[in-house]
Amino acid sequence: MAAQLAFASDYMEGAHPAILKKLAETNLIKSAGYGLDEYSETAREKIRKACNAPEAEVHFLVGGTQTNATVIGALLASCQGVIAAETGHVSSHEAGAIEAGGHKVLTIPQTDGKISAEKVEEVLNTFKEDGNRDHMVMPGMVYISQPTEYGTLYNRQELEALSKVCRSNGIPLYLDGARLAYALACSANDVTLEDIAACCDAFYIGGTKCGALFGEAVVFPKPGLIPHFFTIVKQHGALLAKGRILGIQFDVLFENDLYEHIGEPAIAAADKIREGLKENGIELYLDAPTNQVFCVVDNAFMEKLAQKVEFSFWEKKDETHTVIRFATSWATTMEDVDELIKLIKQINE
Amino acid sequence: MAAQLAFASDYMEGAHPAILKKLAETNLIKSAGYGLDEYSETAREKIRKACNAPEAEVHFLVGGTQTNATVIGALLASCQGVIAAETGHVSSHEAGAIEAGGHKVLTIPQTDGKISAEKVEEVLNTFKEDGNRDHMVMPGMVYISQPTEYGTLYNRQELEALSKVCRSNGIPLYLDGARLAYALACSANDVTLEDIAACCDAFYIGGTKCGALFGEAVVFPKPGLIPHFFTIVKQHGALLAKGRILGIQFDVLFENDLYEHIGEPAIAAADKIREGLKENGIELYLDAPTNQVFCVVDNAFMEKLAQKVEFSFWEKKDETHTVIRFATSWATTMEDVDELIKLIKQINE
Amino acid sequence: MAAQLAFASDYMEGAHPAILKKLAETNLIKSAGYGLDEYSETAREKIRKACNAPEAEVHFLVGGTQTNATVIGALLASCQGVIAAETGHVSSHEAGAIEAGGHKVLTIPQTDGKISAEKVEEVLNTFKEDGNRDHMVMPGMVYISQPTEYGTLYNRQELEALSKVCRSNGIPLYLDGARLAYALACSANDVTLEDIAACCDAFYIGGTKCGALFGEAVVFPKPGLIPHFFTIVKQHGALLAKGRILGIQFDVLFENDLYEHIGEPAIAAADKIREGLKENGIELYLDAPTNQVFCVVDNAFMEKLAQKVEFSFWEKKDETHTVIRFATSWATTMEDVDELIKLIKQINE
Amino acid sequence: MAAQLAFASDYMEGAHPAILKKLAETNLIKSAGYGLDEYSETAREKIRKACNAPEAEVHFLVGGTQTNATVIGALLASCQGVIAAETGHVSSHEAGAIEAGGHKVLTIPQTDGKISAEKVEEVLNTFKEDGNRDHMVMPGMVYISQPTEYGTLYNRQELEALSKVCRSNGIPLYLDGARLAYALACSANDVTLEDIAACCDAFYIGGTKCGALFGEAVVFPKPGLIPHFFTIVKQHGALLAKGRILGIQFDVLFENDLYEHIGEPAIAAADKIREGLKENGIELYLDAPTNQVFCVVDNAFMEKLAQKVEFSFWEKKDETHTVIRFATSWATTMEDVDELIKLIKQINE
Repeated sequence: MAAQLAFASDYMEGAHPAILKKLAETNLIKSAGYGLDEYSETAREKIRKACNAPEAEVHFLVGGTQTNATVIGALLASCQGVIAAETGHVSSHEAGAIEAGGHKVLTIPQTDGKISAEKVEEVLNTFKEDGNRDHMVMPGMVYISQPTEYGTLYNRQELEALSKVCRSNGIPLYLDGARLAYALACSANDVTLEDIAACCDAFYIGGTKCGALFGEAVVFPKPGLIPHFFTIVKQHGALLAKGRILGIQFDVLFENDLYEHIGEPAIAAADKIREGLKENGIELYLDAPTNQVFCVVDNAFMEKLAQKVEFSFWEKKDETHTVIRFATSWATTMEDVDELIKLIKQINE
Repeated sequence: MAAQLAFASDYMEGAHPAILKKLAETNLIKSAGYGLDEYSETAREKIRKACNAPEAEVHFLVGGTQTNATVIGALLASCQGVIAAETGHVSSHEAGAIEAGGHKVLTIPQTDGKISAEKVEEVLNTFKEDGNRDHMVMPGMVYISQPTEYGTLYNRQELEALSKVCRSNGIPLYLDGARLAYALACSANDVTLEDIAACCDAFYIGGTKCGALFGEAVVFPKPGLIPHFFTIVKQHGALLAKGRILGIQFDVLFENDLYEHIGEPAIAAADKIREGLKENGIELYLDAPTNQVFCVVDNAFMEKLAQKVEFSFWEKKDETHTVIRFATSWATTMEDVDELIKLIKQINE
Repeated sequence: MAAQLAFASDYMEGAHPAILKKLAETNLIKSAGYGLDEYSETAREKIRKACNAPEAEVHFLVGGTQTNATVIGALLASCQGVIAAETGHVSSHEAGAIEAGGHKVLTIPQTDGKISAEKVEEVLNTFKEDGNRDHMVMPGMVYISQPTEYGTLYNRQELEALSKVCRSNGIPLYLDGARLAYALACSANDVTLEDIAACCDAFYIGGTKCGALFGEAVVFPKPGLIPHFFTIVKQHGALLAKGRILGIQFDVLFENDLYEHIGEPAIAAADKIREGLKENGIELYLDAPTNQVFCVVDNAFMEKLAQKVEFSFWEKKDETHTVIRFATSWATTMEDVDELIKLIKQINE
Repeated sequence: MAAQLAFASDYMEGAHPAILKKLAETNLIKSAGYGLDEYSETAREKIRKACNAPEAEVHFLVGGTQTNATVIGALLASCQGVIAAETGHVSSHEAGAIEAGGHKVLTIPQTDGKISAEKVEEVLNTFKEDGNRDHMVMPGMVYISQPTEYGTLYNRQELEALSKVCRSNGIPLYLDGARLAYALACSANDVTLEDIAACCDAFYIGGTKCGALFGEAVVFPKPGLIPHFFTIVKQHGALLAKGRILGIQFDVLFENDLYEHIGEPAIAAADKIREGLKENGIELYLDAPTNQVFCVVDNAFMEKLAQKVEFSFWEKKDETHTVIRFATSWATTMEDVDELIKLIKQINE
């Protein structure tokens, strides 16, 4: 493994060094458990400021699937389901965690990983007009991810349109920001944390894939959206006893706007990979500006590349071609990127 | 908070320094996610050796409630419940996590936090003989904790007796080792990791309260007990993306028998507190040899103490007396213990 | 079986003849499904009148366990549990249906099958004052049964006291009326349907044990208590396609106050059995005025009786004595009762 | 409502007169509860014979959604889902009952309501080869309905092919026979009860839509497939206290092959409607031989028809056309059919 170039995912390293440093500095200080410590409180306050949401309720959970299952389970009534893109993380890659909590994922078609306000509205209207609606799962919320599972971004207009449809229908909009730092660091992005807090009823700011050892910060811009959320988190096994470990990490990530910049090396690296692929005549699978690069390669090329590089098999394109993914992270080095492009060039020749 | 002596719990500090050191050393090395990395594999191998269970299946989860909910949910059939002491952690302090997974906790009486093989057998026999048994929740496994929630220990004979009853009835015995290091470090203890692996069908070795930042190692001495446990862990939101963080911590904890010794300062500290209480005429609530000290104090004393010391309120004894708990940890210093005893003496005078 | 005297339960016969008659008369009339038919509507209206609750929402479900699981699951938030007597039907004889829906049954001590307002208040206050309450299951409603599982009755004062405690704590009071007709037919009873509708937030009027083929009528005196209850009923598998079958049965049961009188033969029969037992020196286990008769017999007597009579084994009293139950129903004949008493006398001699 | 021709569903009437007769005859006979009575036993024996499955385990449940939720929940491991057609009843019209039980419905494309062995095999193989499969819901069983929700039939070859794929992959095949009598009564059908018992691991014989007041008979051709199924049924609220009511109904339905013939009037009626539609130039939506008739009508026609006839709106075809459904039942009269066709002709002119 050591000899390989690793672009398989964005959670292959540990944490940003500043996090490890602060963990070490504070290690023997005693503090209260379950997020009631001073680090967690400072982190929450910084997040509120970054989101311009001074009243926001902020909770720290451990991982993404857990966060999605806990928030979605808490937002939905028992007879409701969550609208999501067919390619949404909750739709297929969470081992049925949403269903295990009793709720159906109501998948709708997507384009480049995104769902549109129009389609959501159509689904809501179709449900309302269906004579059988009382025998069906009621759409109770909308789930989106930013960036999406395909690395694409909702722009502000799209996000506002989704927000408007949700609010006029009285259902919450929830945004999964597992890779949010890679959206914020991207020049093509026009959606700020503040926009997200204004448009969404709940969202989470990803730590695991964005420089933390682990951890996700759930934000409810308007407090009290979910009564007893602390207990619900505990019941989901998502309450960390040493909550300070999460608090310290987000405290560092939101010190001096680190979170808004931490993804920049990943974007620079991904941009360079995209450029290198094009130069070598390799087709991008879709036009995505963040830290995931999807391209279509022929299978012979893929096999050769796999001997030297770790990447992700995404899906079969046709009998002789495959969609693969390179993921970069805050820790990706330009040396590795250059090496990757060199290899691609060599194999291609 | 800083001015106070903190004995409220055993998860008030960060991690053993050796863990932080190794996290820092390995921080930028890339590795596979979800526990498929080399650190996790080394840690698993060390745990297998420490348990003398060369075939054991070892999984790393994040926290205790999560681990109990995941393992118990996976071991029980839908119509079964788990037998546990009324004082068991799963019975009352996990916010209904077991019930949220669909299962009843079948509580039985305890003595000093422990349940007996005789009582378990009686419950199993009563169920078998009950004409209404098909309308009731079937006992499907037994849950115990070592040390118990009251800091007491099962001895080897008691554990073997429980194991025998479970095996002759064909139901698994599961041991919650959230504080296991504090049992192993205790001179009164005669139950080794090897004994636990021999007697139990599933157990977990606690990290969170025993020197790790967080993390629990689930051990199935006989592999394959629960098919697809990896996916079940994922579904429970208990699968850490950067699994290496868990692997590294347990790798350090099981290097040079650290885990078997890490609790020693806690036991020495607790012993000294117990001695100091007795010297000051304060009654111990029960005779427990591990890192939790329960004593009965009058309410006036308690209020004075609370001005200088953090401890846990446990339960009202009578109108004028209260049971309180002091918890020590691997990181507790003798200076703090001496200071505590001095304070107790002062208040008592 | 035919040769035996059958006092094993109150659901051993079919339905009151008037029900069969109406089912036959209406059999080929076509009507809408799922309770949207005219018979169901008429039945609902009659129930509203009988309860003096003109706004009440009335739903017809099939059976008791199903009704309890559906109503309780719908009333509780995910982190809440239901307070019930240790002897409550939901506590032990519903195969874990409440837990399967994700909720803990918070059992409290009972006297003769009843719980007191004082005890409920104490539990609610203890919870509120517990520093660990956010890690525990929150009491979210109270479950009682009338008559209780021991055939006893809450009087109006006791019911009002429970109602007051629930309302001042903002949690619903739910009454399981599986055998309600046997309370209403009882001279010792001072609680009317109207009282129940005034004191409870939800209750069900039992059909299965009270003259119907099957069926229970759930009443929410204030409509809208549970949004989308129709869909929740469907999701629980509790929505009968041919809802008219339920509607017709309750329409008959609430025609000319039949429901308030249908239990009278059962009470007369039970009273006579109680008298006969006393005359033969057999101790009643408790003083209950409804259709269940609990008595303590020596084991030799029990074995002889069992050769001729079907009754229920209830529990072991001591090594040589057993608590047994005789249940009567709306269909019990005095001939059978006389025969039973004759037999008891013979065996006793 | 009375003035209308009712073709809205196949559960608009009560029961076959022979059922009411037997219910009346046996009404006051006392019998054991929960399906332990002699009528249930006789009915089970008759069903075993009709299926040529002498060892089969037979259970009587109340309704279809309940039966599907109970059987599917019991057959799947927690990390598994059920493969079903997008149009399967469990996929959309059961209010999320399968998901409420914790399981995902893995929908696959259908043709005329049917899924093919090839498609199922492809899905199973794709799952096996997916590198992410441990993060996804594992296909754990296959659900089909006979007739399908579109009134079409699997032929024997198709059923055997599905069975073979399931068995070679070690997963059960489950058949929902809510309308099974209408398949068996159909001349186009070549699949017998015996074939179903040979091909499926579990199936249910529908009563509610096929002449009973309510009730479905679950058959496990090989006994013991689901340990403790009785208790699981109870836990799902699906165990009828007066189980005899179900037993008596199926006892009548399986007396003298009634079940295999009871659907014949429905098929004759549906055939005549299909003929009448064609004669009036109205396009059938699909070619289905059972008791449901789907046709495409223009919206003006639909509105006029709706003034005199109850039918089901199925789906919008285009801006000016709609798919509607006429359902016939064992109780449909030719007079009503003739009247319907006359009306169609009148409106059409």
